[in-house]
Amino acid sequence: MRALYFDHTLQLRYDYPLPSPRPDEALIRTRLAGICNTDLEMLRGYGGGFTGVLGHEFVGEVVRTNRVSHTIGTDLIGQRVVGEINCYCGKCPTCQRGDRAHCPSRTTLGIRGRDGAMADFFTLPIHLLHPVPDSVTDEQAVFAEPLAAACEIIEQVHIRSEDRVVVLGDGKLGLLIAQVLQLTGCNLLVTGHHSHKLEILAAKGIPTQLATASIEPGADIVIEATGSASGFAAARSLVRPRGTLVLKSTIHGKVPLDLSGIVVDEITLIGSRCGPFAQALRLLAEGLVDVEPLIHRRFSLDDGPAAFRQVASGALKVLLSP
Amino acid sequence: MRALYFDHTLQLRYDYPLPSPRPDEALIRTRLAGICNTDLEMLRGYGGGFTGVLGHEFVGEVVRTNRVSHTIGTDLIGQRVVGEINCYCGKCPTCQRGDRAHCPSRTTLGIRGRDGAMADFFTLPIHLLHPVPDSVTDEQAVFAEPLAAACEIIEQVHIRSEDRVVVLGDGKLGLLIAQVLQLTGCNLLVTGHHSHKLEILAAKGIPTQLATASIEPGADIVIEATGSASGFAAARSLVRPRGTLVLKSTIHGKVPLDLSGIVVDEITLIGSRCGPFAQALRLLAEGLVDVEPLIHRRFSLDDGPAAFRQVASGALKVLLSP
Repeated sequence: MRALYFDHTLQLRYDYPLPSPRPDEALIRTRLAGICNTDLEMLRGYGGGFTGVLGHEFVGEVVRTNRVSHTIGTDLIGQRVVGEINCYCGKCPTCQRGDRAHCPSRTTLGIRGRDGAMADFFTLPIHLLHPVPDSVTDEQAVFAEPLAAACEIIEQVHIRSEDRVVVLGDGKLGLLIAQVLQLTGCNLLVTGHHSHKLEILAAKGIPTQLATASIEPGADIVIEATGSASGFAAARSLVRPRGTLVLKSTIHGKVPLDLSGIVVDEITLIGSRCGPFAQALRLLAEGLVDVEPLIHRRFSLDDGPAAFRQVASGALKVLLSP
Repeated sequence: MRALYFDHTLQLRYDYPLPSPRPDEALIRTRLAGICNTDLEMLRGYGGGFTGVLGHEFVGEVVRTNRVSHTIGTDLIGQRVVGEINCYCGKCPTCQRGDRAHCPSRTTLGIRGRDGAMADFFTLPIHLLHPVPDSVTDEQAVFAEPLAAACEIIEQVHIRSEDRVVVLGDGKLGLLIAQVLQLTGCNLLVTGHHSHKLEILAAKGIPTQLATASIEPGADIVIEATGSASGFAAARSLVRPRGTLVLKSTIHGKVPLDLSGIVVDEITLIGSRCGPFAQALRLLAEGLVDVEPLIHRRFSLDDGPAAFRQVASGALKVLLSP
């Protein structure tokens, strides 16, 4: 089968072996896969040298299952699905605490120890799959994973309608975060470097501003979603004392931090990553978040390397269809 | 009058002018002042070059007041008092929000724009003063400020009895924090480099361990109170995914931070500083926190420079009495 394989360089392979689902896993045919900035960061070394098939944003169709447990729900053959990406053990203290996304022995689809979805087929544990409602198109469903990551912010932080919230970054994730935060009724501002991206939000009534213009500091909550190392300093300068700074960017490398300033101003810094799929699918099904304007272009899997170059040049969501 | 004055170097001055209380301020005679690690960091450049009389930990006696408002409570002449150190405007948005400790135009006793308590006399706004109950000695009361800072942690973070909490640092603040956290009934461990300091806690039934021994990672909450730049990395390595890391050290300089690790592990970092005096005084009055074992030695104000050298060599609390 075809697969977009990474081993120091990105290669399109035509002879990749068809995976075989392990116990309680499903074999899934990829319908669409999305390219995420994390994929780009991985090409730059983020994550400690993953080797394998990339791709953790997908909508697919279940082809075959290898069920051995009777406790994991109904069979899904023929179903359109999206899926959570952290494959946990379920038995360790972290899993038992309910934080399965941080299981220390987890594999992560297309990121860590497990081939991803940028291929004709891939496998994932059945219990991580979420059926896609008929009213949600493939082009919408492929956003479930990043939209869940956007929803994670409102799982972690109680955002009140009186809060002044600034989102830094008008990339793919920033545009999803902005739409999720708009649902809270907070006093929202989104900044970025690309007027054509900000216009997508402006059309939905979300206040936006170019990052080059000055922003009033003293925000209650600042979301750093620039995907660049310089974003942190900008975010830090905007948050008020006792305010909250949510970190969304996964960037390869270290950033110098003035810890005393964090102490004196009593800032709360919160790392935020994968989120709840059920909420993301509901927001898509109810039309509460609009993802189609975020699609830049669709490429065939055969043109995967060209698609990655497009994303690296700053394009919004690029989709791959096998 | 005498004053321990800092202007690039620490000087004992005998001719310092007696301060005059401004409207709604009190003139206070210092009974005892404590030397804090923040004072030492200031000698190293922390805080951006303060010039003036040092000292923000004190117990004193009100000598004179200059009351002009009728709304600031009864007169306190002759009263023993401790006092909050952030002198705020009361009118700006930060003050109006209730966060007066972070008023952007604040002065801070002995730290920023206001002479401190390491002198025969000093001034402070009357509404920042807290009368000391008769049952609390001077030697206890002088700990009100750092004990309030320790209490700030339980104001900010809900610590449950099932939480595993590690305090890094057996300095003056670490020993106060440990005693406050013991009150929550949490599963507590305190680590440090000084067995004679840790023994103070062990005598109170608090589990301790030398920092050189290995500590089981995966703590729910880690308190960084080492006062050293290397403490952050140690604290980070001990906290579990989705755990909380409370920062207490104010250190001059920057620390390189792996932001991606914070994001992936969804760590919450909380800066923590000044705290509630009323709680601190109550804990002292009720004997719930034991501060006398933390007193290393008492010096005359005349021997202030020698007292500072003692603190720099790693001593516990050194007190100055005029």
